[in-house]
Amino acid sequence: MGKRVLIVGGVAGGASAAARIRRLDADASITIFERGEHVSFSNCSLPYYLSRTVEDKDYLVLMTPEGFKNSYDIEVRVNSEVCGIDRTLRKIRIKDSVSGQEYEESYDELVLSPGSYPIRPKSIEGVSLPHVFTVRNVDDIAKLDQYVAREEIRSVVVIGGGFIGLEVAENLKSTGKQVAVAEAAGQIMAPFDYDMSQILQKELYDQGVELAVGDGVKAITEDKVILNSGRELPCDAVVLSIGVLPETELAKQAGLEIGETGAIKVSADYRTSDPHIYAVGDAIEVYQRLTHKPTKLPLAGPALRQARAAADAMYGMSTRNNGVIGSCAVRLFDLNAAATGLNEKTAKENNIPCDSVYTMTMDKVGLMPGSSPMHFKLVFEVPTGRILGAQAIGKGNVDKRIDVIATLIAMNGTLEDLKGLELCYSPVFGTARDVVNLSALVALNVLHGAVKQVHVSQVRELVESKACIIDVRGRDEFEMGHLIGALNIPLGELRQRISEIPNDRPVYLHCRTSQRSYNAVMALKGRGFDNVINISGSFLGISYYEYFTDMTTGREKILTEYNFL
Amino acid sequence: MGKRVLIVGGVAGGASAAARIRRLDADASITIFERGEHVSFSNCSLPYYLSRTVEDKDYLVLMTPEGFKNSYDIEVRVNSEVCGIDRTLRKIRIKDSVSGQEYEESYDELVLSPGSYPIRPKSIEGVSLPHVFTVRNVDDIAKLDQYVAREEIRSVVVIGGGFIGLEVAENLKSTGKQVAVAEAAGQIMAPFDYDMSQILQKELYDQGVELAVGDGVKAITEDKVILNSGRELPCDAVVLSIGVLPETELAKQAGLEIGETGAIKVSADYRTSDPHIYAVGDAIEVYQRLTHKPTKLPLAGPALRQARAAADAMYGMSTRNNGVIGSCAVRLFDLNAAATGLNEKTAKENNIPCDSVYTMTMDKVGLMPGSSPMHFKLVFEVPTGRILGAQAIGKGNVDKRIDVIATLIAMNGTLEDLKGLELCYSPVFGTARDVVNLSALVALNVLHGAVKQVHVSQVRELVESKACIIDVRGRDEFEMGHLIGALNIPLGELRQRISEIPNDRPVYLHCRTSQRSYNAVMALKGRGFDNVINISGSFLGISYYEYFTDMTTGREKILTEYNFL
Repeated sequence: MGKRVLIVGGVAGGASAAARIRRLDADASITIFERGEHVSFSNCSLPYYLSRTVEDKDYLVLMTPEGFKNSYDIEVRVNSEVCGIDRTLRKIRIKDSVSGQEYEESYDELVLSPGSYPIRPKSIEGVSLPHVFTVRNVDDIAKLDQYVAREEIRSVVVIGGGFIGLEVAENLKSTGKQVAVAEAAGQIMAPFDYDMSQILQKELYDQGVELAVGDGVKAITEDKVILNSGRELPCDAVVLSIGVLPETELAKQAGLEIGETGAIKVSADYRTSDPHIYAVGDAIEVYQRLTHKPTKLPLAGPALRQARAAADAMYGMSTRNNGVIGSCAVRLFDLNAAATGLNEKTAKENNIPCDSVYTMTMDKVGLMPGSSPMHFKLVFEVPTGRILGAQAIGKGNVDKRIDVIATLIAMNGTLEDLKGLELCYSPVFGTARDVVNLSALVALNVLHGAVKQVHVSQVRELVESKACIIDVRGRDEFEMGHLIGALNIPLGELRQRISEIPNDRPVYLHCRTSQRSYNAVMALKGRGFDNVINISGSFLGISYYEYFTDMTTGREKILTEYNFL
Repeated sequence: MGKRVLIVGGVAGGASAAARIRRLDADASITIFERGEHVSFSNCSLPYYLSRTVEDKDYLVLMTPEGFKNSYDIEVRVNSEVCGIDRTLRKIRIKDSVSGQEYEESYDELVLSPGSYPIRPKSIEGVSLPHVFTVRNVDDIAKLDQYVAREEIRSVVVIGGGFIGLEVAENLKSTGKQVAVAEAAGQIMAPFDYDMSQILQKELYDQGVELAVGDGVKAITEDKVILNSGRELPCDAVVLSIGVLPETELAKQAGLEIGETGAIKVSADYRTSDPHIYAVGDAIEVYQRLTHKPTKLPLAGPALRQARAAADAMYGMSTRNNGVIGSCAVRLFDLNAAATGLNEKTAKENNIPCDSVYTMTMDKVGLMPGSSPMHFKLVFEVPTGRILGAQAIGKGNVDKRIDVIATLIAMNGTLEDLKGLELCYSPVFGTARDVVNLSALVALNVLHGAVKQVHVSQVRELVESKACIIDVRGRDEFEMGHLIGALNIPLGELRQRISEIPNDRPVYLHCRTSQRSYNAVMALKGRGFDNVINISGSFLGISYYEYFTDMTTGREKILTEYNFL
C-alpha cells in the first residue's frame, strides 16, 4: 500500500500537486478536499466570463472530479471544508457542506493549498450589502454576472485598481455598463511605477471608465460609493477587489508557523514547520530574490511550480528554490501591460542603488501595419548594471519583452548582456534592434556617464526654476504644444544655432521620444558642452506624467498643450 | 579637424555605423558610399510591398541622404560604387554610376558594409532570362512588382524555400497568383529540423502553394521551370532566392584576409586584417558560439550590433563579442515560425551530444478565444542539460518563446533554469505554465531517465517491426485514425486493462500530444513496467511527419488516417 496523501484545496496548487504525486507514485492514495463546488477552475479567466469572452461558465472549469478519477486515479471531494488538523495523530477533520456531516481522514503527508480570499474591510460602511460582490471563484463570478445582467443595473463601481479590479472593469465596460474604478493609492496597478501607471490611467480615461485615485472608500450605499474626499460615485452594483489575504486559519489552528507577512512559512522545499505538512500557492510566504525579503505573490504560475517542487520533495527528489521575482501581465482595453522584477519605487524603498531609463519606440518596423509605440521602463542596479526589473505598456506584445527581462533577471543578467541579446526578428514581429536591446544601450550610456538624464517627474521643477530647456523637435511639432519657456532648436539646426545654447549652466534637452535629443546631447558634448542633460521619456513622457497629475491634483499646467501618441 | 571616415554600403550596417560614429565624434567627417539608389532601406520588409502590406515602395526607404545630412551631418553618396582600395595611401576609388566618372577619396578609417548578393547559379539553364528576378533592394522589388502586376502573369515559381523565398511566395500568393516553391534540399527552411519543417510545408500545402522539395532546378524556360527529376512547374515569372553570398570582391582586391567560409575575416572588434579597415554585416564571417566555428549570418540584427561595436572600437572603447547563435523568425500565411541556436541536425553534425523534446500545447489558456496549439522543439546538451536551441511554430506568438530561449542560451542556461523561469502570465497572453517551462520539464524527464522516448522519425520502424505500440487516446479518437497494429487502451482504462500490456518487451506509448501518454508511462513505470517508452510528438507529430514524407517519397502508409490539428 502506498502513501496516503491528502490535499486541502483543488485549484492551481492543489490539483497540480495531486497530478505530480500520482506520476511519482502509482500506489499513493490521493484525495483532494475542495471547499467550493469546483476543482481546477481557471481563476485568472473568471473576469472574462462577464463579457462572454469565455462563452460559458462551465468552460471555466478545467477538470471535473470524474476526470481526476478516470485519468489519474485521484479522488476529489468538493463541498468539503477541512476544518481541523490533528498533527499528532495525522488526521484532518472535514465538514461536508451539503450534508453538514463532519468526519475524519488520516494522512501520511498533507498538502495545504487553501489559496487566498478577497479583502472586505469592515471599516467601509455598507461593505456587506447584497449588491457588493467579490471575485474569487466560479460561483462568485456567476452571481455577479446574474446580478449585473439585469437591465436596471447601469453602472458599477469597482473598488481597487489592481489586476482583477481592472479586468472586471474592462469586461463590464464591454457589456455596456458605466464603470468607475476607485483606488485608494495614488495610482492604479502597483507593479508599475507612477510614471508608467499614467499611461494605463489614460487608457481607462480614453475608454470612458471613470477613475478616482488617491481616494479611499468611506461608505457604500444602495446607489453610490462615497469616497473619503466626499466624492460620490453613483452605482447599482459594487465589485470589491482591494486585494487578497492568505487563507491561514487552518494552519494557525494547527499551530503551524506563520511568517512575518502573515502567510504560512515554508522551507526551501515547501514544508511547513511540520515536516509532514506541505503548503503551496497563495497561502504561503515566498522569498523575493531581488529584495532578499519574504513576500506574498498570489499568482498561478508560482503556485504550479511550488506544487511540483513540494511533490518532488515528498518523494525525496532534490528541488531548487529560485525565490520569486514577480512577473505579471494584463490586458487593459487596447493596451497590454506587463512587468517583472522590481519597479523603481520598490527598489528604492529597499535601498537598492538603482537608476532607470524610459524609452518609447515602435514595437515593429514602422512601415508595417499594426506597428505601435511601446513604452518601456528598465530598472537597473548602480554601479553593477544588473537588471532589476522592467515595465512595458503598448498595443503590441509587451509580454514578450518582459519575458526576456524576466529570463535575464533569473540568470543575473546585466545591461551588457541585454545589449548583446540576439533575438529573433522579422518586420512582422519586431525591429532589428529590439525595444529591449535599445533600452540597454540607453541605460549603459546613463550608467557610464556618457549621457546624463533627468526623469519626467523632475521636469516641473526645471520649468518653474526657468532652467534652460531645449526642445529639438521640428517647428511644427513644437507649435502643437511644448513646455513653457522651452527653446525650440530642431535637431537639423543645432550646428548652425549652437551659439544660442548657453555653456555656463545645465542644458536640458528633449524631443518627442528621446531619440533625437539623445543625438543632440551627444553632438553638444562633442562640441564642448559639459553639462547637457537628456530628459528621459521626452515630450511624450512629460505629457502623460503632467496631464494626469494635473487632473488628480488640479495644479497649474507647465505644458502649453498635451501631445499623446 | 576630426577623423575622415568612409563607409562602403549604406544599408543596415553602414548606416548604423555612420550614426554611431557621429555620436562618438562631433568632428569626424563621415561619408557613406552606396552603390544603389537608396540608403537605409528596410531590406527585410521588401517582400511585403508585393502584397501592399507596405503600401508604397517609398515607405521602404527609412532615411534619405538629406535626412542623414540634416540630422547627423553625414554625407551620403548614392549610385556610387567603390571599386578599389589603396591601403598604403589610404584611398578608395569611387565610380559614379550616373556620370560614369571615377574619383578618389582619402580615409583615416574605412568601414566595409557591402552586404551580400543573391546566388544566380550559372549551372541552371535560362537563369539570366528577363523574367527571372532576385530580391535584394528596393529597385529589385519594384521591378518584380511591375512585372507580376501585369494581368497575363498568372503563375510564379519561387526557387528556394528559405526566408526570402517563402515571404515572396506568401506575398505573391495573397495577390492571387498561382505560386510554386522549388527547393533542392529535402525540406524548406533550413533552420528547422526535418520534423518541424513538415508543419511549415503543410501550411504551404493548405494555402494552395505548390511545393517541390528534394528536387533541384535544371532549367528555366519562358513558361516553366524544369526540375532535375523531370517535373515541370509552369510559370510566367521566376524569383530566384536560393541564398546569398558575401560581397567580398573589393576586400579580395585589396588583399584583405578572407575566412574559411568565404566571407571577410574580422577580429573580435570587427577589424579586417588591415587595422584601419573595419567590416560589418552580411559580408563578414562571424563566430558561432555554440559550434565554436566560423559561420555566415546575413541578418539585420547582428549587422546593427557589429556596426556599433566597430564604431566603438574605432574610438578606443572596449567591446564585447558574444559570437552569434542565429535567431530568426518568419510569418508563413497563418503560421508564425521562429528558431534560435542549433537545431538537432546541426548539433549532431557538430558532434555535440544532445537530445531533443517535441511538445504541443496551447499557447494560451484553452478556453480563451484565439488559443491555438504551439509546436515546440527544444534541443539540449547531454549530459549537462545546457540549452542549445529551440524551434517554435504556431498561430500565436512563437517569437516570444524563442526570444526567451535565445536569452537563456546567451546566459548559458540549462533545463533547470528554463524549468524555473517566472514568466508573465494572463490568460489573454499565455498559460500559467508556459510552453517553454513545460518543455523543460519534459526534457528533464528525458535527461534524467525518468522517461524514455523515441522520436517520430523512428515510429515507422517500430510499426514495421511489429513493436508493441499502445495508443492511450479515447476510442473515438482512435477510430478516426491510428497507427497500423497499435493497441488502443484509453488512459482511463489503463489500470483495469494492465494485464493486456506485455512486460517482456519494450512498450511504446502515445496519445495525441504526449500529455496523456506521459501520465500513462509514469503509471506503468510505477506498476513495475521497466521498458515503457513515450513517443515524443505523439500522434500529431507522427501524422505530420508521415503524411508529408509519404507525399514526397510515395512510400507505403503506416497510418490508417491523418489527424492534424
